[in-house]
Amino acid sequence: MLVIKLGGSAGINYEAFLDDLARVEGPAIFIHGGNAELDEISRRLGIPPRHVTSASGQSSRFTDRETLEAMFMVYCGRVNKTLVEGLQRRGVNAVGLSALDGRIATGRRKSAIRAIEDGKPKMLRGDYAGSIERIDPTLLTLLLGAGYLPVLTPPALSTEGEAINVDGDKLATEVAVALGADQLLVFSNTPGLLADVGDEGSLVTAISLANMAEAEGFAQGRMKKKVLAAQDAVERGVGRVIFADARVGRPIARALEGAGTTIMA
Amino acid sequence: MLVIKLGGSAGINYEAFLDDLARVEGPAIFIHGGNAELDEISRRLGIPPRHVTSASGQSSRFTDRETLEAMFMVYCGRVNKTLVEGLQRRGVNAVGLSALDGRIATGRRKSAIRAIEDGKPKMLRGDYAGSIERIDPTLLTLLLGAGYLPVLTPPALSTEGEAINVDGDKLATEVAVALGADQLLVFSNTPGLLADVGDEGSLVTAISLANMAEAEGFAQGRMKKKVLAAQDAVERGVGRVIFADARVGRPIARALEGAGTTIMA
Repeated sequence: MLVIKLGGSAGINYEAFLDDLARVEGPAIFIHGGNAELDEISRRLGIPPRHVTSASGQSSRFTDRETLEAMFMVYCGRVNKTLVEGLQRRGVNAVGLSALDGRIATGRRKSAIRAIEDGKPKMLRGDYAGSIERIDPTLLTLLLGAGYLPVLTPPALSTEGEAINVDGDKLATEVAVALGADQLLVFSNTPGLLADVGDEGSLVTAISLANMAEAEGFAQGRMKKKVLAAQDAVERGVGRVIFADARVGRPIARALEGAGTTIMA
Repeated sequence: MLVIKLGGSAGINYEAFLDDLARVEGPAIFIHGGNAELDEISRRLGIPPRHVTSASGQSSRFTDRETLEAMFMVYCGRVNKTLVEGLQRRGVNAVGLSALDGRIATGRRKSAIRAIEDGKPKMLRGDYAGSIERIDPTLLTLLLGAGYLPVLTPPALSTEGEAINVDGDKLATEVAVALGADQLLVFSNTPGLLADVGDEGSLVTAISLANMAEAEGFAQGRMKKKVLAAQDAVERGVGRVIFADARVGRPIARALEGAGTTIMA
């Protein structure tokens, strides 16, 4: 079982990616985000994105109800159905889903966050965001068994039955763990983890749990989250996690051949 | 098997509708549109809706690629996931799908339409619209068998693998026929078919295929399409079609008790 995550950043070669995805043999789950597109569409809708910094220094999107509905539109609508259409055109019987559907991922909503705005601590309320606590693999397993390719995206469902914004990499990790995936491929617009973030030649080709602390030292910003999620996945039984480049031809084949950064036990 | 179609018009009591939908026993498929919301969101995105009149006098939406992507956002994103969220909150294990997913509905794209604009005949190209030619019930049957409630919406998939805008009532008819539904309930913001469109007291309570011609005489505009689709459904084996009011409390229970307009053989 292969879990493939594609981030929504600039420079990604979607046509090459879908061409390669159509060649994957055996059961696979495809997970995507839509962060960059959400910023664009939110601005066009007149609800500019609001990114806040938590007291611990982490930056995240503040997801009020209007932004959550924009997320439905972008993640579950435009991005998900464009990918499903592209896969169907290539003969792959894809089924697009959010993690709300069939209660694939449920978790707790954290409606208030302590944030720093203009240098001052503030309590922001009305956030529709949360963390995944449980994966129900029933629907995914049913679809895989019937030969479909699930194409999955946030949001997830809160325990109170509200949609919640959850991190796409975390969703991929939790799904890979729940389904006992051999491999989790995490694609973005970099070659993998870089020792020097400004130098694409400084790729770290392999990390083991033993030298994880060093890798976490290299990782900055969003990449730090990805490394922690990968570590978590491997510790919980996923065979290996590969960070790979989605800007190149044959991106999935290359990643499976050893390009990118491999994280193993 | 019950197929329930809800149009996206003003005045609909969504909370009452979902409350009642959560009480339905036995297998059901819920189909929705999003026409009114698409107009609103398209305007906010700066791509105002373009409705064209065909040479035969029928009005339809001209769906260029940008509008199709707005349709992904509104139908498959905002409307579909808001309904799924509302159902999940009520304990119904809903799965939201477009007719692209699992190739539920496929048909032929008609990319050019002969239309009248400003009184002059014109050939408009680049339309992503088409008519459904085939329903593949595999995915719906799989989900129903596992106890899920499918929540289905246009677009469908063209034979060339492009998304196409298809009529929601037609999608409901084709799904009801393909799954051998006993009943197809078609909800909108009117009590049913009215003999006098301006008088809600002039409800036509029953139509049989024998007096269909008379009913078609009453029906105007969009209602005419609905009556023809209902006739088609009944002729092809659906037990009965009911046009009913989605503005009231217990709308589904009332429709099943005999409110609205019933079309039978």
